[in-house]
Amino acid sequence: MKVGVIGGGQLGQMLAQAGTSLGMKFSFLDPAKDACAASLGQHICANYDDKQALRQLAEEVDVVTFEFESVPAETVAFLSDFVPVYPNAESLRIARDRWFEKSLFKSLAIPTPEFANIESQQDLEQAVAEIGLPAVLKTRTLGYDGKGQKVLKQPSDVSNAFAELGNVPCILEGFVNFSGEVSLIAVRGQDKVIRFYPLVHNQHNQGILHLSIASEQHPMQGLAESYVAKVLEKLDYVGVLAFEFFEVENGLKANEIAPRVHNSGHWTIEGSVASQFENHLRAIAGLPLGSTHKRGESAMLNFIGSIPAKDQILSIENCHLHDYSKAFKAGRKVGHATINCNNINDLKQIVSHVETLIKG
Amino acid sequence: MKVGVIGGGQLGQMLAQAGTSLGMKFSFLDPAKDACAASLGQHICANYDDKQALRQLAEEVDVVTFEFESVPAETVAFLSDFVPVYPNAESLRIARDRWFEKSLFKSLAIPTPEFANIESQQDLEQAVAEIGLPAVLKTRTLGYDGKGQKVLKQPSDVSNAFAELGNVPCILEGFVNFSGEVSLIAVRGQDKVIRFYPLVHNQHNQGILHLSIASEQHPMQGLAESYVAKVLEKLDYVGVLAFEFFEVENGLKANEIAPRVHNSGHWTIEGSVASQFENHLRAIAGLPLGSTHKRGESAMLNFIGSIPAKDQILSIENCHLHDYSKAFKAGRKVGHATINCNNINDLKQIVSHVETLIKG
Repeated sequence: MKVGVIGGGQLGQMLAQAGTSLGMKFSFLDPAKDACAASLGQHICANYDDKQALRQLAEEVDVVTFEFESVPAETVAFLSDFVPVYPNAESLRIARDRWFEKSLFKSLAIPTPEFANIESQQDLEQAVAEIGLPAVLKTRTLGYDGKGQKVLKQPSDVSNAFAELGNVPCILEGFVNFSGEVSLIAVRGQDKVIRFYPLVHNQHNQGILHLSIASEQHPMQGLAESYVAKVLEKLDYVGVLAFEFFEVENGLKANEIAPRVHNSGHWTIEGSVASQFENHLRAIAGLPLGSTHKRGESAMLNFIGSIPAKDQILSIENCHLHDYSKAFKAGRKVGHATINCNNINDLKQIVSHVETLIKG
Repeated sequence: MKVGVIGGGQLGQMLAQAGTSLGMKFSFLDPAKDACAASLGQHICANYDDKQALRQLAEEVDVVTFEFESVPAETVAFLSDFVPVYPNAESLRIARDRWFEKSLFKSLAIPTPEFANIESQQDLEQAVAEIGLPAVLKTRTLGYDGKGQKVLKQPSDVSNAFAELGNVPCILEGFVNFSGEVSLIAVRGQDKVIRFYPLVHNQHNQGILHLSIASEQHPMQGLAESYVAKVLEKLDYVGVLAFEFFEVENGLKANEIAPRVHNSGHWTIEGSVASQFENHLRAIAGLPLGSTHKRGESAMLNFIGSIPAKDQILSIENCHLHDYSKAFKAGRKVGHATINCNNINDLKQIVSHVETLIKG
């Protein structure tokens, strides 16, 4: 089976590593000449809206998926005329727009922070009056890793905020008093079977994921699964979906979804029976899903901007390096480490050790 | 780091899957247009003695290794003038020739079956008189998967045997009354550190490996390690070496070595902390070696000629498919499954299940 991937970054790379074992070959559409996944398959070096390139991709492959949600809707629509695309266009349309996303949560009775659609400074001022401060103004599309958002703490933060985010459609989200952030990685097959990985605790630094720890029997696992299943079924979703939640007193509040394999699921490569990458590919290929069971205790630490001395990382027993072969650049995800142990105390000790190396 | 691999079959493919996580890029030299590893890197489609192609490979990469031991000695010698090649030329020279190999075992006091060098029918008859029957006549080079050998049970088997194997240099090996076959996968780094995986029990069908089961504290582990360490140190070896032994009463007899990652080590992908592929690459790149510890209990079953229905294989919990994307052909290794469980009884049950699917 030949799989086409829109985007050729590290997620594409890890998809190809996993899919090769399933007998799959890969084609990546990515305008970047140095796209890191490119060496693991055919690289169609073209813009995402290049119809000729899209046509070429569709002809070469049996199924298409994507590794980021900001793919133009027209790209997916165009491709869908020639080749199956998973997840489907509707899932992408919802997931790439915070207004559609939050509206979906609301319609499915999934708790989420208060929110309002903002198309002008006037909308913003009215919404602040209703929702109150503090609140967060976020662009509806294209935000990631903390980009495209502004925290509004006091009235003076509000006055020019819509312009500061570029006069583009936004949503205002009410402040949530949360104790932690968790994500649930789920996968749904073409046969409608759903499997869930265990909830993952996530810690961010300056808006970018820093540390994920797979939890052991989180009390909210069942609740999270019920929320995620509603979304998967509503969207007739096929593939891996990542769902981020705020942990609040006695429950969860939905933050956002990503219609793809997700950074907080990277630990599954070593830490679960079948990784999120393998399960995404099984799903889009119409194959039975693999087990999402944990193998021991796992954590994932991102390498942002640079990777610490490789020989030091590789000298740590039970620490697995993932180097994305990307040029080092401040704020850029260039690799990660998975730590996998038999018990949580050893895990925490190694996490601290790797954090020390990251701090240099 | 860029790694050049002589050969682009499934071993090259699995090297590239593992090495990608270490930030490596791959170039494969293989004359086959449909070499299965080719899509995971640069493919130099040329014969192994094509000097221009070898020069191109040497210029593109930082280090060269190989995935089969029948690489022409001249190829390694030529490449070594331009780029480091691991394992070294001497290791390859020994490992590709049964006479040199057995002579090395003997010189290191590693028990091995009786053997004699055979360069004519006359040599053969003299050796049979000394060693006795039954015995096995094997070509010194190019034998694999039971090819290039003939069992001699009675005098009439001897009379035309040298011609039957093509009038090429052979060795005669005395019959060994063995209870089982085991292999030890070892890796030695540029820093001379050696690590061993647990001994693996191997079962062959018609000369081709069928089943490998990683053993739990085999009583001969220490003895095997001592033999393998002698060879690694004598050859100043860098990389993974596979060493096959016969299990005999109170000991082991050396059968053969392979200077490369090996089929009986494929289970390490899911079954150990760092796989044989990752450790081979760490070694040749001068990086610290990874842990060879087992994770649970593991077995590997080869798919010879064809792969059973994929959806059935993938429906088995704890069974991992490896499809080499090779055209199906009788006697050809086209994939394998790794079974990984917490206990040996579950493991054996799943092995039986997969064997049933293999038999169709």
